[in-house]
Amino acid sequence: MAVPQRILIAPSGFKESLDAETVARSIAAGVRRVLPGVQITAVPIADGGEGTAATLAAATDGVLVPVNVTGPVGAPVESHYARLGGSATGTAVVEMAAAAGLRLVPRKLRDPGATTTYGVGELIRAALDEGIRTIVVGCGDSGTSDGGAGALQALGARVLDGKGRDLPFGGSALIDAERLDLSGLHPAVHEATIVLACNQHNVLCGKTGVARVFGPQKGASPRQVEELAKAMRQWARVLERDGLAAGTDYRTGPGTGASGGLGAGLAAVGARLVPRFEALIDSGLAGLDLDALMRGADLVITAEGAIDFQTPNGKVPAVVARRAQLAGVPVLALAGSLGKGAPDVHDIGIDAIASIMTIPMNLADAVANGEQLLIEATERTMRLLLLGAAVSSSIDSRYRELRPI
Amino acid sequence: MAVPQRILIAPSGFKESLDAETVARSIAAGVRRVLPGVQITAVPIADGGEGTAATLAAATDGVLVPVNVTGPVGAPVESHYARLGGSATGTAVVEMAAAAGLRLVPRKLRDPGATTTYGVGELIRAALDEGIRTIVVGCGDSGTSDGGAGALQALGARVLDGKGRDLPFGGSALIDAERLDLSGLHPAVHEATIVLACNQHNVLCGKTGVARVFGPQKGASPRQVEELAKAMRQWARVLERDGLAAGTDYRTGPGTGASGGLGAGLAAVGARLVPRFEALIDSGLAGLDLDALMRGADLVITAEGAIDFQTPNGKVPAVVARRAQLAGVPVLALAGSLGKGAPDVHDIGIDAIASIMTIPMNLADAVANGEQLLIEATERTMRLLLLGAAVSSSIDSRYRELRPI
Repeated sequence: MAVPQRILIAPSGFKESLDAETVARSIAAGVRRVLPGVQITAVPIADGGEGTAATLAAATDGVLVPVNVTGPVGAPVESHYARLGGSATGTAVVEMAAAAGLRLVPRKLRDPGATTTYGVGELIRAALDEGIRTIVVGCGDSGTSDGGAGALQALGARVLDGKGRDLPFGGSALIDAERLDLSGLHPAVHEATIVLACNQHNVLCGKTGVARVFGPQKGASPRQVEELAKAMRQWARVLERDGLAAGTDYRTGPGTGASGGLGAGLAAVGARLVPRFEALIDSGLAGLDLDALMRGADLVITAEGAIDFQTPNGKVPAVVARRAQLAGVPVLALAGSLGKGAPDVHDIGIDAIASIMTIPMNLADAVANGEQLLIEATERTMRLLLLGAAVSSSIDSRYRELRPI
Repeated sequence: MAVPQRILIAPSGFKESLDAETVARSIAAGVRRVLPGVQITAVPIADGGEGTAATLAAATDGVLVPVNVTGPVGAPVESHYARLGGSATGTAVVEMAAAAGLRLVPRKLRDPGATTTYGVGELIRAALDEGIRTIVVGCGDSGTSDGGAGALQALGARVLDGKGRDLPFGGSALIDAERLDLSGLHPAVHEATIVLACNQHNVLCGKTGVARVFGPQKGASPRQVEELAKAMRQWARVLERDGLAAGTDYRTGPGTGASGGLGAGLAAVGARLVPRFEALIDSGLAGLDLDALMRGADLVITAEGAIDFQTPNGKVPAVVARRAQLAGVPVLALAGSLGKGAPDVHDIGIDAIASIMTIPMNLADAVANGEQLLIEATERTMRLLLLGAAVSSSIDSRYRELRPI
């Protein structure tokens, strides 16, 4: 019986449970229980959100550099950026969630009008001060809606009202913004290449803008949403006039709304807003050539914490499946949970799916035992593949008996 | 790509959720979603416990005959036996759980010293009165420990104390049993073939006897267990002296302890105690030739509510797997839940296992959605088999490119 010889493991992390490296390692362990001789290549896939810096540091043999920064509610937080290694040496990855993520905002302080991306600017500044001139900023899982104003402030910019006074932190204050003073901007910003890995569907203003789409999930009331939307419009006006990138559409340009408007803010100092998987995979910055790895594989295993109707919309398994389809390699997707609409992923090139669940259990137990459940689920799934191969060979051999080749 | 052409579906019911027919039908539906052209044979497997009568009636094109009987705690219950059809016409199946099952004993009345199998005797009597002379009694899921005394009473026997007084219902009363008076026994009992489909490991007395093994799970305290054990020893003495089957070892004979001693009681009026799957499958009474069906299949799918460390111990998937191994056909087992030790089933001929669970959920939701979950799990599993077949063919074809045959 023939079995897969070369398996490419390209999973996302399981949000709030397992990081992408742990997912990849667990899947590899489960595969080896059944196919000890198989050749495995593990490529944890960062999606820009939580864990992105760690994933890319690990993938390139880089390091995480610890930095204490101002957190989203003003209190200090221990953060970090990644200094990549290998062929990506000289590049840093700043994960915005590590300095201004929703998880860093205590539930009772979830006021999207008040939180700041100041810490994100501090991480960028720390990387620049170390001499790094290529910085990838991963967006996703943000807890802020300040249009990136805080990040600009940390980089030396001043955000001023009509009377020349510095505005306080937060998106709400931007309603009074009249001027962006870039005279004090960290000089290295001008020399550096700053790339934002962002969801291109996120825009700063309008019906699908930051305030309307993300405000409520970050804790805003309907009235706050309206005020925030107005503040974002005012902020866009200021950026258009005072930003470095003349002609930029700060209101509805692709990615301007990434991470609560961080996209727009950093675009004003020359950052490029790039689709996240292009920035994180295709750029080669991470030292990976996913397509080449695909072509050398018999089977691709991807994974995500939840596979559901949102998965086809640009989640890691969808991106991996698209590339696998181009390479003509079949795809298996494992999931912490299979939610509503999960079978839809068969339409986007995922051949089979499996859940790690085994018995009725609550979410906390599932999260606490995620690693073990994933190893065992992978083992079960590999046995199912072998069974499929065996049934297939048995038919093949019967067929051959009937019609010898 | 070759795929299975003929699938035999031979599942158990999922206890307290889906009967075996529903399980078989759901698996068939899931298979057809992926392999619409496959030839499916569905054989729901009865294990003697709850649902056995219905399963065998359905399998043979027979009918369920409703009978009102005395329930295990004395209150009347609506019960039934199966009048089999097809080649098994003339045979009735009495499911003891339908008249004296644990589910019929309200939790606060769970006193194994007091519950009776009287209703089981009433079902047998009803079948005899209809002229049926071959009766298979399915044991399992019982809520009684009365040594079958109640069943004998319903069939016209008297259980008397030293003063010639009739004993009341329940195993505890048997401590005073001195005589079994069979003079009033229903005359058809002597002509009839009564076969008990029972777990041969269950014995009436001793360390692994009814009282010690089953008493606690049926609600007995340690002291009650001791008293019940003493009563069972006394009961065995009476059966040895007054039973029709001279020379029978009522204490430790295989199956004497089945369904709280129903085995011993009915053995005293000539019933044969037969290993349950031999009685339910091999006898042909149910009109099934499982082994012949196996030989015609490319794949066998079995299932059980819970697969765990107990499964190898004679549960339906274990029995199905043993026969499939003999026929050289691979086996897939689906489960409501995969508990501790589930992977042990790979040692008994089950090639692959899968759970119907998809997301963190509680038992009640899993039970309430069992049918849908099972259909979808089967679909996922079929896709995994196809993926395995595809990966296998892809390797095969690469291999052929390298070394043309």
